[in-house]
Amino acid sequence: MQKEFLEVKDLYRNKEEYAGKTVKVAGWIRTSRMSKNFGFIELNDGSFFKNMQIVLDEKLDNFKEIGKLPISSSILVEGELVLTEGSKQPVEIHATNIVVEGESDSSYPLQKKRHTMEYLRTIAHLRPRSNTFSAVFRVRSLAAYAIHKFFQDRNFVYAHSPIITGSDCEGAGEMFRITTLDLENPPKTEDGKIDYSQDFFGKEANLTVSGQLNAEIMALAFRNVYTFGPTFRAENSYTGRHASEFWMIEPEIVFADLEDNMELAEDMIKYVINYVMENAPEEMQFFNNFIDKGLLERLNNVVNSDFIRITYTKAVELLIESGHKFEYPVEWGCDLQTEHERYLTEEIYKAPVFVTDYPKDIKAFYMRMNEDGKTVRAMDLLVPGVGEIVGGSQREEREDVLLARMEEMGLNKEDYWWYLELRKYGTATHSGFGLGFERIIMYMTGMSNIRDVIPFPRTPKNAEF
Amino acid sequence: MQKEFLEVKDLYRNKEEYAGKTVKVAGWIRTSRMSKNFGFIELNDGSFFKNMQIVLDEKLDNFKEIGKLPISSSILVEGELVLTEGSKQPVEIHATNIVVEGESDSSYPLQKKRHTMEYLRTIAHLRPRSNTFSAVFRVRSLAAYAIHKFFQDRNFVYAHSPIITGSDCEGAGEMFRITTLDLENPPKTEDGKIDYSQDFFGKEANLTVSGQLNAEIMALAFRNVYTFGPTFRAENSYTGRHASEFWMIEPEIVFADLEDNMELAEDMIKYVINYVMENAPEEMQFFNNFIDKGLLERLNNVVNSDFIRITYTKAVELLIESGHKFEYPVEWGCDLQTEHERYLTEEIYKAPVFVTDYPKDIKAFYMRMNEDGKTVRAMDLLVPGVGEIVGGSQREEREDVLLARMEEMGLNKEDYWWYLELRKYGTATHSGFGLGFERIIMYMTGMSNIRDVIPFPRTPKNAEF
Repeated sequence: MQKEFLEVKDLYRNKEEYAGKTVKVAGWIRTSRMSKNFGFIELNDGSFFKNMQIVLDEKLDNFKEIGKLPISSSILVEGELVLTEGSKQPVEIHATNIVVEGESDSSYPLQKKRHTMEYLRTIAHLRPRSNTFSAVFRVRSLAAYAIHKFFQDRNFVYAHSPIITGSDCEGAGEMFRITTLDLENPPKTEDGKIDYSQDFFGKEANLTVSGQLNAEIMALAFRNVYTFGPTFRAENSYTGRHASEFWMIEPEIVFADLEDNMELAEDMIKYVINYVMENAPEEMQFFNNFIDKGLLERLNNVVNSDFIRITYTKAVELLIESGHKFEYPVEWGCDLQTEHERYLTEEIYKAPVFVTDYPKDIKAFYMRMNEDGKTVRAMDLLVPGVGEIVGGSQREEREDVLLARMEEMGLNKEDYWWYLELRKYGTATHSGFGLGFERIIMYMTGMSNIRDVIPFPRTPKNAEF
Repeated sequence: MQKEFLEVKDLYRNKEEYAGKTVKVAGWIRTSRMSKNFGFIELNDGSFFKNMQIVLDEKLDNFKEIGKLPISSSILVEGELVLTEGSKQPVEIHATNIVVEGESDSSYPLQKKRHTMEYLRTIAHLRPRSNTFSAVFRVRSLAAYAIHKFFQDRNFVYAHSPIITGSDCEGAGEMFRITTLDLENPPKTEDGKIDYSQDFFGKEANLTVSGQLNAEIMALAFRNVYTFGPTFRAENSYTGRHASEFWMIEPEIVFADLEDNMELAEDMIKYVINYVMENAPEEMQFFNNFIDKGLLERLNNVVNSDFIRITYTKAVELLIESGHKFEYPVEWGCDLQTEHERYLTEEIYKAPVFVTDYPKDIKAFYMRMNEDGKTVRAMDLLVPGVGEIVGGSQREEREDVLLARMEEMGLNKEDYWWYLELRKYGTATHSGFGLGFERIIMYMTGMSNIRDVIPFPRTPKNAEF
């Protein structure tokens, strides 16, 4: 039956082709204005951000019934597509037949009045029907596809890194434990501890915080790879920028140094923004009008300018020279706080900024040591409004240097046996980064809370829907 | 530095353009044959299934050193691209300079001799460098992209369904528990039970077994959506067809019945097979030659034939009439076992078969009840060699019928409040299915064990790498 019902998007985009013809559409009533003899229905069919205006009159058998339908009722409409130049919408359908598919209830909570974002989160099963979330989740879908297309067009292999991990040594954050033990009565070892050897995986298992180490495996076989999957943080963080479950993209490239890495990140971000602006112009206009006034101008600037590249050392100098009073004072060696990052990108450069070559003590063990022995080939990409959006590095490919660094940091090299073997059997210069998918959606839409760019967000004390 | 080094795939595909020119490549030594004055290296750079033959001779300063490099050493090669018509490979590079990037160790385990699949699983960090796994994981990547492209080209919205779920009511299988409680010393309620209100999400939480119910939410806003993400089963199953973590695609379409659903599944599968055959011809030829002799013929048949559509009732009749002796006898009402499914698709039809309208008692509560009151609008797609590859249904969109069915099955309607509200606020005919991603990879490659189509498989007692 579905092919009978044309998509509203198709009717908008190819309106000349359909003009004057009888068409069928199916969708949900967003609003209706009825008078005694005729009426207008704004019908949304989900295929498109914009509604189709349905014009109906008393010649319809069920004109009265239709007029009384609550908002969000679904109907099947047959009628003539009419071009309406000069009016608010370019097309409308003059209905000759309307069938009620599913009558809604007058208690439908998404009435015309504005709701708070907080309230809308409590009806996550209905909020995708609102303009805002219709736009957000379509942009999310398009951005995800743009990322795949960007990498696939460049011959990257999409590598599925595991979600369940038997190692807790990734070190990127707090982890969720996974178990099938009967927790009310778990098996114990002789010394009274829980006996994880009897758990499902025969040992402790957690949800992944990063697919990077696995991506390195794949890259050292395929040259260029990327992951794109969910990652997890069991942190009791209630900010608008953190969720317990989020999606991450982690490209990894071989015979490639930090310069290549930055170029890749810059190209990718520009590509995704361009793709979304081209493929969701109505949604992006909506965000620009109602969510974040300067959005399109800012995104166009980003797409058309070169990203700034400075070292951490230079960044610290600039922050100190600025004379700006920060909550956390800046000095060489400190980790950059969000306030510092935002000052750099929003005040000093007003553009995306790569900061490179961080002190080794605030970065992970796998980042390549510079010749100064103090800094590593790390990079963070900072963007206005969001702060850090990408973090990456050139990886330490030298087995001896890596081992020394692990020892220095107290890591157990047996836990990393396979990671070390990648350096033993044909190591190569390689680099990669992680992009928080929700961060780039926030950046592109102007939405300020991560809970509002994930269809069913998971945060502390919240796993509804 | 990466752009200096052309991809071997590029050199093969555009060999006329590069012929006679000086090029640089970087990759790993797969094999080498050295004589006193000259030698041949088969170099794989990961970009392509095929190797590049490097011809070198004693004019190179480091000719002797290169000749002694263990397999899997990485090298940077500069030389002239030479067309070699009539020989085994169409091109080779006459090296003028070779730099050793990373010398391997002679203990490298992937030597020329054949290894068992079981052994290769123990070196999952190196097996992607073998021909078989290079081919499998590239096909996996291309198939994943083909799925996205198929749906995106049709204006479907990619919906991320949650991985962590607070409901254990999806009923599709055993679940993994997620927790951050200190399991050695968990908080207890007054009556001595574990107090999950103090757990991270404030209640019990599990890993998802299906995104379908969430996909229905999104579909009833966007008309056509699909999910593509990891799903989990905590089943102690040691077969070659089951993994604890696997990826699933779940499209959901609105104003669409079971016929639309079958058409979509058939179109999608044909599209993915075509896409992979077109974009990985070398890999598919390899599978056909070394893994599964009749593979390409079978896939070409599938792509060019209409899938069979029969009812469950008819399928049972055919199985009984066949006179074949099954381990599990067949009678109306029984669940079809793998042996039955395979007999239908491999012996009776020798083609993919949709079986529809199963007895309600062996299917899920959300499937639409037929007028006979005994069967539901379910469909399974069976394919030769694999058995069930797709399971789906038209969903019960009638609130009263759904409620009655849930009551009959003893389900608690409070647990499904939002699912029921989808029927209250503008319900609509809708349908969907689930495709196990690994199943279709096995089907397309002839690989017989699911552990060998997942880069880092998770199965009972195994969460390595």
